[in-house]
Amino acid sequence: MMRTFRIARPDETLRRELADKIDNLTKPKGSLGRLEELALQIGLVQQTLCPQLHRPQNIIFAADHGIADEGVSLSPKEVTWQQVFNFVHGGAGVNFLCRQHGFGLKVVDAGVDYDFPSGLDIIDLKVAHGTRNYLHGPAMTADEMELCLERGAEVVRRCHAEGSNVLSFGEMGIGNTSASSLWMTCLTDIPLPRCVGAGSGLGPQGVSHKLDVLTRALDSYRGDGSVTDVMRHFGGFEMVMAVGAMLQAAELRVLVLVDGFIMTACLLAASRLCPEVMPYAVFGHCGDESGHRLLLDAIGAKPLLNLGLRLGEGTGAICAYPIVDSAVRMINEMDTFGNAAITKYF
Amino acid sequence: MMRTFRIARPDETLRRELADKIDNLTKPKGSLGRLEELALQIGLVQQTLCPQLHRPQNIIFAADHGIADEGVSLSPKEVTWQQVFNFVHGGAGVNFLCRQHGFGLKVVDAGVDYDFPSGLDIIDLKVAHGTRNYLHGPAMTADEMELCLERGAEVVRRCHAEGSNVLSFGEMGIGNTSASSLWMTCLTDIPLPRCVGAGSGLGPQGVSHKLDVLTRALDSYRGDGSVTDVMRHFGGFEMVMAVGAMLQAAELRVLVLVDGFIMTACLLAASRLCPEVMPYAVFGHCGDESGHRLLLDAIGAKPLLNLGLRLGEGTGAICAYPIVDSAVRMINEMDTFGNAAITKYF
Repeated sequence: MMRTFRIARPDETLRRELADKIDNLTKPKGSLGRLEELALQIGLVQQTLCPQLHRPQNIIFAADHGIADEGVSLSPKEVTWQQVFNFVHGGAGVNFLCRQHGFGLKVVDAGVDYDFPSGLDIIDLKVAHGTRNYLHGPAMTADEMELCLERGAEVVRRCHAEGSNVLSFGEMGIGNTSASSLWMTCLTDIPLPRCVGAGSGLGPQGVSHKLDVLTRALDSYRGDGSVTDVMRHFGGFEMVMAVGAMLQAAELRVLVLVDGFIMTACLLAASRLCPEVMPYAVFGHCGDESGHRLLLDAIGAKPLLNLGLRLGEGTGAICAYPIVDSAVRMINEMDTFGNAAITKYF
Repeated sequence: MMRTFRIARPDETLRRELADKIDNLTKPKGSLGRLEELALQIGLVQQTLCPQLHRPQNIIFAADHGIADEGVSLSPKEVTWQQVFNFVHGGAGVNFLCRQHGFGLKVVDAGVDYDFPSGLDIIDLKVAHGTRNYLHGPAMTADEMELCLERGAEVVRRCHAEGSNVLSFGEMGIGNTSASSLWMTCLTDIPLPRCVGAGSGLGPQGVSHKLDVLTRALDSYRGDGSVTDVMRHFGGFEMVMAVGAMLQAAELRVLVLVDGFIMTACLLAASRLCPEVMPYAVFGHCGDESGHRLLLDAIGAKPLLNLGLRLGEGTGAICAYPIVDSAVRMINEMDTFGNAAITKYF
């Protein structure tokens, strides 16, 4: 019995008043482009003319994938746990971005195939030592999937209790672009070959092998095609946790910063479960991973950045945060035509 | 006799070592996309494997244009001086961005048609009370043009003496998208209609009138087509000052953050005078102004952002600064595969 999220679409009553406020700031109407759209969105999410961003945090869900045994990734599986150590020690890509933009960082062991020593700053929510290889059956059980959704939600409740009203989500999991491609093809009907890309850096031959493995995985899938069945069958633990986290965030009216291909696949699944999650989502980045642009288009998302990033970890979402912050500062800090005694010229 | 800028292309010797350092950071090769390119560029500009950004400042050059009398802009001319007050009082778009990203702000009166009271935080380098209307002859004299180049350079020398090694440039001047379109068509041979856009928000009829005025201006131009003659004939003072400022910045190895359409037209002129300025330039933003994308393509520039901004003032450049900062942090703060004991997977 799946946990139900009660997500309410933001009340639209305030839209007109927000738009008027933005139009009266000292600039030609519309001349701050995406900043104006974001200010409107965040004002609606927070139901105020003076939105504020508090305690941004990035949550990384990490887990391993049984499918990695089939050679679908350039990176060996041990990179998952090695990178978790790197996150905790502060030397990874996500770390300098968190420091730069004042983000807290939570590293969650959702199901890494490694036993971390205690005493590290890792949130232990391990469901199992990696998912099963979905060439031979479902990646996880129905109970494991429920557990993931609930544990992802739990991490977000913790952040919310700490005062966060804006969260970004990232992942670490060798093999997880494969699962994302399968979620994408199953939930959008875009043919698999257009959903599969180079991941962490496969060459053409590697991509071709990956596509072959995933085609076999898709052919052998006998499930009912429902969102929960697709998530359960292909995994991974970190991705299902992210889905639970995104839904919980929206339920709590927390702004959701969406990272790259994998997190966009999670938002896709979340939005198929609860379409009301969409108004809470800000799409940070369109990455280089083949299929990401297609996926964004399929859900009607307009990413803020396009910097050729394909690292994951939340890096694309965090890079976009200053723009979100700018939008909030704009609506709070800019003067109005009347106040500044400037001829209103539109 | 024009002031000569001695700009040296960055020595390329360090390129290989910079690339190796970037490739050994704990991420799949190339996975931080534009951040990696920027880190390489800034390392070369500063000739170091550990680049640093010091005291970023935004310089706004403000001036009026005689052509504004022809109704080429939606905004009345008095908005130029009114906005200068707004910059000084901190209520404009550029102000919240400067506060957000730790930028200093210098507001330069290059030739506003207004006498500001003394005691305001405005750098008075006024050449005249606006340019002449170029429908009836050159916008400025040769001496005035020289003065603009030298005074723009002077402001940059002052910033450099204060310790800045990264500067963005912005403008305020009702009518200056018109001059920019004329510079663009004269210096790139792209036909005028493709260089003309809506400025601060003209409708189709307004754009059509603007194009008509600018076509007449271009038809009546009898100069020699050289860069300096085009700058002198069409103005404005703030734009020529920005050209001098950009060239001086490159001479001093200061990184130049390029804003929207008008500042890109200035960089175009600067690069036609000294092609060596290009490696010092970072293009912040591709705006909505028709022609900006074409212009960027014409000079081989890849802007970092595309947020639909069309405000000027330096806003697009400053919005891009966190990405430049991220690139520098990446190369200094990320751990290497060897140090972090992570299997190098490429």
